[in-house]
Amino acid sequence: MKLTWLYRNYKSDLDLIERELEKAVSSNSELVHNASLQLLKAGGKRIRPVFVLLSAKFGEYRIDTVKNVALALELIHMASLVHDDVIDDANMRRGLPTINYIWDDRVAMYTGDFILARSLEYMTNISDPLAHKKLSKAIVEVCIGEIEQIKDKYRFDQTLRDYFRRIKRKTALLIAVSCELGAIAGRTDAYIYRRLYRFGYFIGMAFQITDDILDFTATEEELGKPAGEDLRQGNITLPALYAMRDSRIKAKLEKVNLQTEKEEMTRIIDLIKESGAIEQSHQLSRRYLDKALAILDELPESKAKRPLKEIANYIGKRRY
Amino acid sequence: MKLTWLYRNYKSDLDLIERELEKAVSSNSELVHNASLQLLKAGGKRIRPVFVLLSAKFGEYRIDTVKNVALALELIHMASLVHDDVIDDANMRRGLPTINYIWDDRVAMYTGDFILARSLEYMTNISDPLAHKKLSKAIVEVCIGEIEQIKDKYRFDQTLRDYFRRIKRKTALLIAVSCELGAIAGRTDAYIYRRLYRFGYFIGMAFQITDDILDFTATEEELGKPAGEDLRQGNITLPALYAMRDSRIKAKLEKVNLQTEKEEMTRIIDLIKESGAIEQSHQLSRRYLDKALAILDELPESKAKRPLKEIANYIGKRRY
Repeated sequence: MKLTWLYRNYKSDLDLIERELEKAVSSNSELVHNASLQLLKAGGKRIRPVFVLLSAKFGEYRIDTVKNVALALELIHMASLVHDDVIDDANMRRGLPTINYIWDDRVAMYTGDFILARSLEYMTNISDPLAHKKLSKAIVEVCIGEIEQIKDKYRFDQTLRDYFRRIKRKTALLIAVSCELGAIAGRTDAYIYRRLYRFGYFIGMAFQITDDILDFTATEEELGKPAGEDLRQGNITLPALYAMRDSRIKAKLEKVNLQTEKEEMTRIIDLIKESGAIEQSHQLSRRYLDKALAILDELPESKAKRPLKEIANYIGKRRY
Repeated sequence: MKLTWLYRNYKSDLDLIERELEKAVSSNSELVHNASLQLLKAGGKRIRPVFVLLSAKFGEYRIDTVKNVALALELIHMASLVHDDVIDDANMRRGLPTINYIWDDRVAMYTGDFILARSLEYMTNISDPLAHKKLSKAIVEVCIGEIEQIKDKYRFDQTLRDYFRRIKRKTALLIAVSCELGAIAGRTDAYIYRRLYRFGYFIGMAFQITDDILDFTATEEELGKPAGEDLRQGNITLPALYAMRDSRIKAKLEKVNLQTEKEEMTRIIDLIKESGAIEQSHQLSRRYLDKALAILDELPESKAKRPLKEIANYIGKRRY
């Protein structure tokens, strides 16, 4: 997802965030500095900062205030990625080797801790206690989510509800809070920031479902890791859950583990694609996007509305 | 170290903290709940809450305000212990198996994250932005300290300065901040909270040096792990650094690693004891305690002075 049009209109502010991110992860420990830069190099869509900035536009937009929220949220996200990669024993992220792969789990653990701590430093620049409380609660939820995720691994009898709860904590919550806190930083009234929270929640759900679809439909080159890797790692996502309604497919999936060969994974991916599970997943993602778009209609006019709408539509169409 | 007299005079407030700690680590994830309880069960001296409470006595002591600071600090400390045990690959802590030993490194990583997140929740109840900033900075330092600690492992040519920097970040800083933030929670003026910070810093240095001495001088039963375990893990502490001024001892120490047998460790511990390094370390600890006590004299009268003095003296005498 390349938000090129955003980079045109919000380029200078997003560039500022990027420079500050680089400053934030710099450390006089060479080890953690290099590890953090490895993560920055892998890039990322900076979707959380984008939502923070756009949501702040519904109020008084001042980059000096709002940037602290954007940085805190992106750093929390980055820290959680580093720890996620430990949990998932992942070798690659966005086509680059992970910190735990280059160094080890311990370095990854502490680099993640360090980045989270940096996030806290930015939080201290936010004077609103309400914002603090919301951010801390979100971190707690993200952390609990990660532990639940381990419990759910290779649990082939889990329900759609288990999946939704998981992606809420993994993705939707931080995006919802990005929108909410952006608005709060812009000092909008509660009517606006509550709606932006819900907008972010629905967008986040759609975003993660799309991500989970792409794990099956995109190419290895596009993903920067083999297709079907989520499933092989025991992370059972929406397309797999839909496909397993067919008991013959379920029987095959239940045999998947880290030893499953590439050829077998290709066959299983094909089964999932042929089952109609991808279309069903797209439909659900679309429903979340429609809910998000409906909320935008309830919001007052703002320059931010059009880009938010475009992001929503982009997520519906994104290929990788 | 049993602070029995403290438990007499401050029993109800410390009991309240204990109950709140139990509430803080409770989670609807059974896994993280059990892991956190394992940590709570292992006990601990609750030295940080004690310093918070006593420092607050120099101002307006209100348990409802001050408890948030005490809980936030103890939870940060607990979280760092869990991650420390991953770094050190430790099997035992205070005579009980560690989280990474019972479960695995990943569960320990996320349980630590969860406990840190809970700490943040308590922080949000503290309205003073100054306190937030100081606490966040301390977390950053603790995290950097942990990474530096990995770098310093088995580095037998390190200096005393490397050691002091390490124990400052590992222990002294959080105790200093406990005293400082306790005072700030009690709304003392800057003269008082700055001095309490320094008091805590000196106490913390003495405390860690004593801990590092005990690793060589206490019994396995007292320590809850074999004597000399720090050294075997590559954590080179003050007694070892002093002893290595003798090049023959240095040559022996440089051969220590995780494969070193118990008999060899016993011989090495005896060498260190015979070198006079233990007495030298005690002397330095004593110097830090004297500096701490001198600061107490600069502080206005308060009921907290006597217990603070007693803690300082206790640290000088503690056996395990």
